[in-house]
Amino acid sequence: MNELLVAFKQTKYKVPGHGPRNLHVLKKALMDLEDQMESEMYGKGKIIVEFHEKMANFLGKEAAVFFPSGTMAQQIALRIWCDQKGIKRAAYHPLSHLEIHEENGLKELHQIETVLLADKNRVIEFEDVVGMEEEVACLLLELPQREIGGQLPDYSTLEAISAYCKEKGIKLHLDGARLLEILPYYEKTASEVCSLFDSVYISFYKGIGGIAGAILAGDTSFIEESKVWKRRHGGDLISLYPYFLSADYYFDKRVGKMEQYYAEAKELAHFYNQCDGVSTIPQVPVSNMFHVHFDAPAKVMEIILADIYKESGIGLSAYVREVSKTASYFEIGIGDLYAEVPDDELIEAFKLLDKKMKSRNELHKRD
Amino acid sequence: MNELLVAFKQTKYKVPGHGPRNLHVLKKALMDLEDQMESEMYGKGKIIVEFHEKMANFLGKEAAVFFPSGTMAQQIALRIWCDQKGIKRAAYHPLSHLEIHEENGLKELHQIETVLLADKNRVIEFEDVVGMEEEVACLLLELPQREIGGQLPDYSTLEAISAYCKEKGIKLHLDGARLLEILPYYEKTASEVCSLFDSVYISFYKGIGGIAGAILAGDTSFIEESKVWKRRHGGDLISLYPYFLSADYYFDKRVGKMEQYYAEAKELAHFYNQCDGVSTIPQVPVSNMFHVHFDAPAKVMEIILADIYKESGIGLSAYVREVSKTASYFEIGIGDLYAEVPDDELIEAFKLLDKKMKSRNELHKRD
Repeated sequence: MNELLVAFKQTKYKVPGHGPRNLHVLKKALMDLEDQMESEMYGKGKIIVEFHEKMANFLGKEAAVFFPSGTMAQQIALRIWCDQKGIKRAAYHPLSHLEIHEENGLKELHQIETVLLADKNRVIEFEDVVGMEEEVACLLLELPQREIGGQLPDYSTLEAISAYCKEKGIKLHLDGARLLEILPYYEKTASEVCSLFDSVYISFYKGIGGIAGAILAGDTSFIEESKVWKRRHGGDLISLYPYFLSADYYFDKRVGKMEQYYAEAKELAHFYNQCDGVSTIPQVPVSNMFHVHFDAPAKVMEIILADIYKESGIGLSAYVREVSKTASYFEIGIGDLYAEVPDDELIEAFKLLDKKMKSRNELHKRD
Repeated sequence: MNELLVAFKQTKYKVPGHGPRNLHVLKKALMDLEDQMESEMYGKGKIIVEFHEKMANFLGKEAAVFFPSGTMAQQIALRIWCDQKGIKRAAYHPLSHLEIHEENGLKELHQIETVLLADKNRVIEFEDVVGMEEEVACLLLELPQREIGGQLPDYSTLEAISAYCKEKGIKLHLDGARLLEILPYYEKTASEVCSLFDSVYISFYKGIGGIAGAILAGDTSFIEESKVWKRRHGGDLISLYPYFLSADYYFDKRVGKMEQYYAEAKELAHFYNQCDGVSTIPQVPVSNMFHVHFDAPAKVMEIILADIYKESGIGLSAYVREVSKTASYFEIGIGDLYAEVPDDELIEAFKLLDKKMKSRNELHKRD
């Protein structure tokens, strides 16, 4: 374990997240549930049917089905739309999860070609969609765009893209891994946002803080077809209840806290942006997440941050990632822990960060 | 819920299985584990590495990796062997899980053609393998062959097939969903059986009685490649611990009980075979499982069995399946429950079954 992670673990207060991903998270979710509660069997049975209905209702869709992972759910969604249209081509952002985190599953398992829209550093705009030269079966929008700090297009842009896709017969899929987290910024309900999309995926281990798993929602025929593909992928387990029961528990616990996380993210980003050589993307967050960028290499930041954690007892991040030889960053996602950090101690930690960045930059300029 | 299932649930003693698949099964497995135990992260971390090593060692293979399902693990195994050989063709039994329970995942996701060996009603023999006309990259053997009551070839046949495949460069994969359950019959260790195969899958919710999940084992390079495919399939979850921690718990609890289950299965099959119009396949079980066949349609058997359960308080099976208009069957898998059934009460139940079958057959002949 590196020094920064060790120092982070030893802090009294941690700024991001909901706390450690340990066995307690599961035990707590199951604690008050009856021992005699019967497992679902391969997607059938009272407990899973009820959860499916609850999620379909929340998202304003006809039907929903629980998947062990978003990777599986989204490849399947795109496969169904491609098969339906008879065009094996889908469009998405160059930093989509499907493009960079799934070992090319979409291509290797489904033979679906991809069209990358927009530049890496910005979200997909209406012009990108209209300007698409290739014919595609579907378009995937990730809201917020995670790999660029959780940025969002204007809501009117979403409406325009949705209307355009409908007109052109292009199916629109929502990568809503962090859908709940953006509702306060858009000032919309989940079902209002989802009404712009033909299919929707949401995750249960981001803002919701569950163990794992995802919901895919859409029309009944789409969802029925997705269940066939779920079996083909090996995702139709005899029992998925350890995931969806805990997903349900943490959903109820945190669905109402997204407004709070969003406000806290804006406050925290403001603290970062006041420090020398530090900036956030987006500058003003539009969800519970953002990226913190440093004008210093990861190796330097690891030392500076570890020192701050030891002095202040406040952990800002467990890691720093290299951007270039002179720049680094980490990602912040606000969860339950932020509210536990005493204001004055947090402000002290940021004074330390500012001071250390200033003296580092002074030294660096003299080199 | 049908009447037979209702009657089964109300019995004092149930003959097959380990008991209900309810939340207690998971809670019990986790109960004594520390709340602070940290989740693995996407296949990395102490708790999963230790389990992988334990299973690789048990199976006598270089490496092992946990999968959420056998469906996923086995498709991937065959894909790797097909890619390696550059031949998209695999051979297996006509009633293989991949052929009849996976919605053609192997073909739809991996474009692998299949060659079906042997007749539906018997196991694959050496002659079937030698007589194969098509060139295949790999051969999958399911031990025991579940859909025909859990039948096995002679061990010398396995050795001959293994030697032949090695000579011909055909990779041999073991569908060992019930591998532990057959070791007492073969009088072999798991690693002895596995040494005949290039890759091996075992399940944790059959004889072991866990929640779900599977292990795939083989050479290190094979397992590393399988992890890439696991991610493509959407099986590389951030946390699989609810499954593998419980798999580990029930593995330790039951790995030493397979000899007992096997002996009990033979005893129980004997009871069935003494009844009029009832027979088992295999006649003498070679594992903890067998099929019970009735010379009567499912509708008739449902009534007869429900009556027996009510009179005796003993539940023989929760369901009966139609074979034809005049025949039906169910599957038995012996678990922890069998030992709890009092001998004399069980014998009484079988006297009832024999009597009711006799009078039914008398009436039937007069019709």
